[in-house]
Amino acid sequence: MSDAANKAWSGRFNEPVSELVKRYTASVTFDKRMAEVDIQGSLAHAAMLNKSGVLSDDDLAAIRGGMADILADIRAGTLEWSIDLEDVHMNVERRLTDKIGDAGKRLHTGRSRNDQVATDIRLYLRGATDAIVGLVHELQRSLVDLAEQHAATVMPGFTHLQVAQPVTFGHHMLAYVEMLGRDAERFIDARKRINRLPLGSAALAGTTYPIDREYTAQLLGFDSVTQNSLDAVSDRDFAIEFTAAAALTMTHLSRLSEELIIWMSPRFGFIDIADRFCTGSSIMPQKKNPDVPELVRGKTGRVNGHLVALLTLMKSQPLAYNKDNQEDKEPLFDTVDTLSDTLRIYADMMRGITVKPEAMERAVKQGFATATDLADYLVKKGLPFRDAHEAVALAVRYAEEKRRDLSELQLVELQSFSPLIDADVVNVLTPEGSLAARDHVGGTAPNQVRAQIARWRGLLAA
Amino acid sequence: MSDAANKAWSGRFNEPVSELVKRYTASVTFDKRMAEVDIQGSLAHAAMLNKSGVLSDDDLAAIRGGMADILADIRAGTLEWSIDLEDVHMNVERRLTDKIGDAGKRLHTGRSRNDQVATDIRLYLRGATDAIVGLVHELQRSLVDLAEQHAATVMPGFTHLQVAQPVTFGHHMLAYVEMLGRDAERFIDARKRINRLPLGSAALAGTTYPIDREYTAQLLGFDSVTQNSLDAVSDRDFAIEFTAAAALTMTHLSRLSEELIIWMSPRFGFIDIADRFCTGSSIMPQKKNPDVPELVRGKTGRVNGHLVALLTLMKSQPLAYNKDNQEDKEPLFDTVDTLSDTLRIYADMMRGITVKPEAMERAVKQGFATATDLADYLVKKGLPFRDAHEAVALAVRYAEEKRRDLSELQLVELQSFSPLIDADVVNVLTPEGSLAARDHVGGTAPNQVRAQIARWRGLLAA
Amino acid sequence: MSDAANKAWSGRFNEPVSELVKRYTASVTFDKRMAEVDIQGSLAHAAMLNKSGVLSDDDLAAIRGGMADILADIRAGTLEWSIDLEDVHMNVERRLTDKIGDAGKRLHTGRSRNDQVATDIRLYLRGATDAIVGLVHELQRSLVDLAEQHAATVMPGFTHLQVAQPVTFGHHMLAYVEMLGRDAERFIDARKRINRLPLGSAALAGTTYPIDREYTAQLLGFDSVTQNSLDAVSDRDFAIEFTAAAALTMTHLSRLSEELIIWMSPRFGFIDIADRFCTGSSIMPQKKNPDVPELVRGKTGRVNGHLVALLTLMKSQPLAYNKDNQEDKEPLFDTVDTLSDTLRIYADMMRGITVKPEAMERAVKQGFATATDLADYLVKKGLPFRDAHEAVALAVRYAEEKRRDLSELQLVELQSFSPLIDADVVNVLTPEGSLAARDHVGGTAPNQVRAQIARWRGLLAA
Amino acid sequence: MSDAANKAWSGRFNEPVSELVKRYTASVTFDKRMAEVDIQGSLAHAAMLNKSGVLSDDDLAAIRGGMADILADIRAGTLEWSIDLEDVHMNVERRLTDKIGDAGKRLHTGRSRNDQVATDIRLYLRGATDAIVGLVHELQRSLVDLAEQHAATVMPGFTHLQVAQPVTFGHHMLAYVEMLGRDAERFIDARKRINRLPLGSAALAGTTYPIDREYTAQLLGFDSVTQNSLDAVSDRDFAIEFTAAAALTMTHLSRLSEELIIWMSPRFGFIDIADRFCTGSSIMPQKKNPDVPELVRGKTGRVNGHLVALLTLMKSQPLAYNKDNQEDKEPLFDTVDTLSDTLRIYADMMRGITVKPEAMERAVKQGFATATDLADYLVKKGLPFRDAHEAVALAVRYAEEKRRDLSELQLVELQSFSPLIDADVVNVLTPEGSLAARDHVGGTAPNQVRAQIARWRGLLAA
Repeated sequence: MSDAANKAWSGRFNEPVSELVKRYTASVTFDKRMAEVDIQGSLAHAAMLNKSGVLSDDDLAAIRGGMADILADIRAGTLEWSIDLEDVHMNVERRLTDKIGDAGKRLHTGRSRNDQVATDIRLYLRGATDAIVGLVHELQRSLVDLAEQHAATVMPGFTHLQVAQPVTFGHHMLAYVEMLGRDAERFIDARKRINRLPLGSAALAGTTYPIDREYTAQLLGFDSVTQNSLDAVSDRDFAIEFTAAAALTMTHLSRLSEELIIWMSPRFGFIDIADRFCTGSSIMPQKKNPDVPELVRGKTGRVNGHLVALLTLMKSQPLAYNKDNQEDKEPLFDTVDTLSDTLRIYADMMRGITVKPEAMERAVKQGFATATDLADYLVKKGLPFRDAHEAVALAVRYAEEKRRDLSELQLVELQSFSPLIDADVVNVLTPEGSLAARDHVGGTAPNQVRAQIARWRGLLAA
Repeated sequence: MSDAANKAWSGRFNEPVSELVKRYTASVTFDKRMAEVDIQGSLAHAAMLNKSGVLSDDDLAAIRGGMADILADIRAGTLEWSIDLEDVHMNVERRLTDKIGDAGKRLHTGRSRNDQVATDIRLYLRGATDAIVGLVHELQRSLVDLAEQHAATVMPGFTHLQVAQPVTFGHHMLAYVEMLGRDAERFIDARKRINRLPLGSAALAGTTYPIDREYTAQLLGFDSVTQNSLDAVSDRDFAIEFTAAAALTMTHLSRLSEELIIWMSPRFGFIDIADRFCTGSSIMPQKKNPDVPELVRGKTGRVNGHLVALLTLMKSQPLAYNKDNQEDKEPLFDTVDTLSDTLRIYADMMRGITVKPEAMERAVKQGFATATDLADYLVKKGLPFRDAHEAVALAVRYAEEKRRDLSELQLVELQSFSPLIDADVVNVLTPEGSLAARDHVGGTAPNQVRAQIARWRGLLAA
Repeated sequence: MSDAANKAWSGRFNEPVSELVKRYTASVTFDKRMAEVDIQGSLAHAAMLNKSGVLSDDDLAAIRGGMADILADIRAGTLEWSIDLEDVHMNVERRLTDKIGDAGKRLHTGRSRNDQVATDIRLYLRGATDAIVGLVHELQRSLVDLAEQHAATVMPGFTHLQVAQPVTFGHHMLAYVEMLGRDAERFIDARKRINRLPLGSAALAGTTYPIDREYTAQLLGFDSVTQNSLDAVSDRDFAIEFTAAAALTMTHLSRLSEELIIWMSPRFGFIDIADRFCTGSSIMPQKKNPDVPELVRGKTGRVNGHLVALLTLMKSQPLAYNKDNQEDKEPLFDTVDTLSDTLRIYADMMRGITVKPEAMERAVKQGFATATDLADYLVKKGLPFRDAHEAVALAVRYAEEKRRDLSELQLVELQSFSPLIDADVVNVLTPEGSLAARDHVGGTAPNQVRAQIARWRGLLAA
Repeated sequence: MSDAANKAWSGRFNEPVSELVKRYTASVTFDKRMAEVDIQGSLAHAAMLNKSGVLSDDDLAAIRGGMADILADIRAGTLEWSIDLEDVHMNVERRLTDKIGDAGKRLHTGRSRNDQVATDIRLYLRGATDAIVGLVHELQRSLVDLAEQHAATVMPGFTHLQVAQPVTFGHHMLAYVEMLGRDAERFIDARKRINRLPLGSAALAGTTYPIDREYTAQLLGFDSVTQNSLDAVSDRDFAIEFTAAAALTMTHLSRLSEELIIWMSPRFGFIDIADRFCTGSSIMPQKKNPDVPELVRGKTGRVNGHLVALLTLMKSQPLAYNKDNQEDKEPLFDTVDTLSDTLRIYADMMRGITVKPEAMERAVKQGFATATDLADYLVKKGLPFRDAHEAVALAVRYAEEKRRDLSELQLVELQSFSPLIDADVVNVLTPEGSLAARDHVGGTAPNQVRAQIARWRGLLAA
């Protein structure tokens, strides 16, 4: 805040801030992205001051005119940001004062940078939250489309990366639709705590001017006003909550990324990712690498790191505002950017997935995926489960030695493990039979998968 | 799962699990705390199987009887937990089978440990969440009581730990009531995502038995059933969300702890903490140390660490269930314990705070806390803010040299900095005048503080 | 420290510590594991006090006798730890005083619990560090043995989980030997900073008694004495450094675990893990799950979390000792336990790995692993690399369509992509030829792998 | 890598990378800071290839000439970085090829971007490490200078932020010199693991060209070559170790920052920070805020976050190189920048500290700092320590009621607590007497402080 600022507090200070300090303490290089919401907040504040009789009509008109010019300059990229003016707030205010004189100075009546910056972050983050919810929904739509194409495509369901039971690829995709659904819920819940107006808290204790905070809140679309000035200027829990929600979303995407990478590895070969999301190697002519999911996996660390940064930052800070809080912005902005880009690219990438059902089918047959079905079959024929389990375990060992799937054994071979096995076992041992049998809410039966797709289409149309 | 388990899968395995492996992989030493919810879940599952015609009335009665005995043993502390039986689920099931024979074995029909453990954690965490919300409210009540006693007690409000403007101690306490209010909101929001029933997802794909998941949900008080079996057995985002909310609550308490520690330091001397929350030194006879707030500050790291543990754990895990997830429990349990104990002890401790108004008053006078009020006064008399600021800055420098507060200067001295200053400045320069002037929602004026106390009393009575 | 302690500081205190506070602040439940080093430190301190003329020969003899008894009780498990005595130090001291009277009280001359606990942690951690270095070496030996068996076993080397170039399984194992080598180096470096004696720093400022810190250091095997009392009682950077080294070691093992899990997945089928490290499923009779590597992967989060806990704990703590520091122990102890158990089980598990060379060989052929070799071949025949790369890319596309490996194409087919290709290409296109050609330090040629094995055998024999 | 790269692998790819993907995957915006070390590494590689007979003298000369031009462009800021060329390596290589044609293409012989980027990061980080060690030393010198001025300046030593015993301000400053000394040691230890040459590892398996890695290492000043190609291209533990050391350094500085902020708070008033490191408030004319230490405290979170990002990134990554690793750079670069700037500004700021001995002296007298000395005095007169402690506790309570320090009590008053107290107690009860009595290595006696200053002057002169 050196230049302009020194004048403001020159009565107390004997020496100017050094260049190194200026660079170390300035925030305009990154907080300028809040310029539009800063102006939006200032205009609402001015309107409120005018309504409350603190600011004249002429001043209000001048402020509106000046801000319109500044906004145009910002959008045109012609406004020069000065590190001497420290932050976005002082940069905008100085431009305004240069343009309209004393009316510009009167804009800061009844507020302080402490409540101003808190307001700006909330306005910015509210917009980012809404955009991210939209992007989450878009990715969900992309996954629902893919799920619909493969509502009945058989693939091995894994636990411990061992073949467990058959599932459909559509069912698998819908697992991520569910996760993302909860992610969106979390952002929507966080928004409630973001969308409260701190303006009017001034430096820390409120102001002596007759302000009307509810009016400002209404102009800016806030749900309510904050109820304690000390809290309003100093806490950043809403930003930490947002970042935690982002870390969870990235974590979910890291899981899908891991799967895409494994599925695209040649031994699996379950899918192919469109060339435009991959790179090759300038050395190894045969390579096609799933760069995008790998980067997503890596960027999960980035957002986890930002969450830790913000929690560490806030730990043990006494009330009210401390300069530490300036460090809240870069992690938050990078979280917004990382998550937004990731969601956008992911929605596009999932539309470019080629599924290879025959590879999935081969894999189902390699892992004795219907062994549970055979055990259930025996139980339903009256065998205690433990005995059924043992009989099937022996059948699996036999089939493994013969290098065949259970469904490839002959009836007599199967019967050597239990006389209860009959010709009707055929339907049980196929992946299709196994799938169809899991026919309840949440199960992998294709008609259940289709019901979920319909449910999500309805939810996402809203 | 060695002993019992080996029998279960002995058809496939050639050697027993080693003692080291047994110890490394067993979870019963810590997951036994879920024993009661495990039984609760099993009883609901059995009732549902009976309703669906899968389990006979006799079996159900036997299971109920057996479980009642086991529950009694657990509560009496007489049940011996066996590491050979790996986890709480196998321990309980084995006891049941020992008691009631085959009916006990049939209990596991249509479920797997994967959906069973997911159900148990959710039941456990739902209970913990409700208890924690109650403890947060109790602490809020304690703070509101303290705030009421000191709704008008003057203390210096700090920014940057420099004296900024006067606030009331009640206002300061209410800042934490607000923070804790948002913490409670977050737990209540998280509860929505905790309280969904995964049972019926079986190992990963659902089950072939005719189950009625909505009925089980209803019996166990779940709001709804999970909609995708793969997701239901593998994700732990609800636990991470809970832990993030806990980290924020601890972070808020770390801030209050920091303040209590500073306030109790002799140079501040703003408060005293009751002896029962402090320790002395066996070496230094004069010491009385604020151990509890220091430990709370330190334990914030613990919960932050658990959050990182859980996020790291989940990163890049392919679907569906992997053994990694067993590591979710210890961080989660310790988070519940740490936060619960901290809230409980804090509510008690805040009732034992002695406030020292005279020390606060001395501090207000040492920092020129009403300088802003003087500037506002001059602005209201017509001086542009910037000029007012400069005049006051010079007055502050003068008073500093004289080692007096602004309120201790004589009128003529003040007038040397601006002829606009008049006798009516007296009310402006006292802390009480400064407080009273900040009379709007969220401001520190005592009547605003009292309004907030009334508001919170209403909210916390609900 | 309630009971005993209250007596010690009763002159200043009006009320006893409550039960909840007692439980919240006590550390004996976890710090009792330092009992042996606590006694070791006390005996050295007593010997020094005696040498300095502060403690009589009789007192020293009494202390030695009493401590021998207490040590015997601890080892027999018959010493009862009292939470009323707060921590391990007071528990031991009280027992000593009960046994030998006033001589026991004189033991605490010239020290405080602040320097005592700092000494204990360092002694404990020095032992843990030495043990862990030994365990790292043992795991390295296990890996070197495995590498030796497979110094020439062909497997696909992956980048981006896509087949890149052939490597040997031995070479792959040695990559982890290198990582673990650096891990051991880090522990050895950390040990230098652990092994400095803080005793004599007393509460924070040193002591008025004529102590001989170098003598105590010598008795306890410390390399040197700490040089500043304020620093010595308050910093825990050595513990954080240790935990960071542990987090890296676990991270390395998480990588190997990930590979073991993928390699054991049936589509890969590169290895099998001995049954004793796996579990089956009580539901799915065909399952054999790699539980141990999955748990290791999950436990990485645990240690990362402890690192964050310790860093958060230390952030912004003013000098000198604060109670926050009591929270250093549980994360540190659990880090030691987790890492030690993991290293021990891993060394054993790697000896139980069955390698399946034929599955690896199949995979090498599926990914055109020798495409780079063909390009290099063409370059050596004079073709610019870019053109060679392009020619091979086309050959790969052709082979892919034919579903054959490059080595399975006929010479004439290959020559259609470049006339420079000759009969001598045969050696280039086999995995064995590819391996042998990478014959320099660090390369995967079997004789290089064997040279590294010899090098490590030498290093690990030391 | 789209444009140039697409050409390189066009044989395999059907569609270009999209703009969004290009932006998401490109690294040149941040990795261009490695341009100089990239060129340095390339020149050494070229010299080695020439020595090994792979590259002609003419090619080498052309490469040297071309690189000199490019370096000049980079330093002049005239080189245009293209996102189409993805990263710094491809940008430089393309410029080189544009300038010198085929010789430029031959530079990439026997290496891959995987070992190239690993080499660049190590070169970059080696330089950063050396610079940081220098900055740590500079800050230590600044603190030693301050300590020397105040080797005998009395201040209260705190534990639990309660007055404990007198120390000297010089002693307190030297505590940080010790911490920073260990920080420097850690960087120097980390450097050993940074300074190993990965070049020659090629993509992952080594190369078929006759390379001489020891020669390249010698040219680039590396201590040794890496011994395993898979490890060399894929691990980033050296970067994580560096970041962990940086997190510890920042943590130490967060502690000093916390103290500066508390000491500058008016109730303490122990120090003043030069105006050029502070800002005022445009609202509150009296304010002077310690912005720099507050930012340092906040930036600690930033570096902790980067550490978590890197650990998360590396967790569970299979060998060898994955694109995830591209995410290592931004956290690492920001860690270097944050720490470097912080150390630089801190060394300067500590030279601008004004110490206020009279405020410190006042505080010493407010906390009964010499109570321990009185107890020690009584012990030396023959009283058992426990009885001495109790007597002093009662004297403290008496003095507290009289609002006087122990040193301000009259002899007869003191004697009422123990008849052993004599006229010689005077020297014991003054802070100066207390300081002088702690006269051993690490103690706070002024002559010990001066000895430490001399020791550090010697160490830092080296």
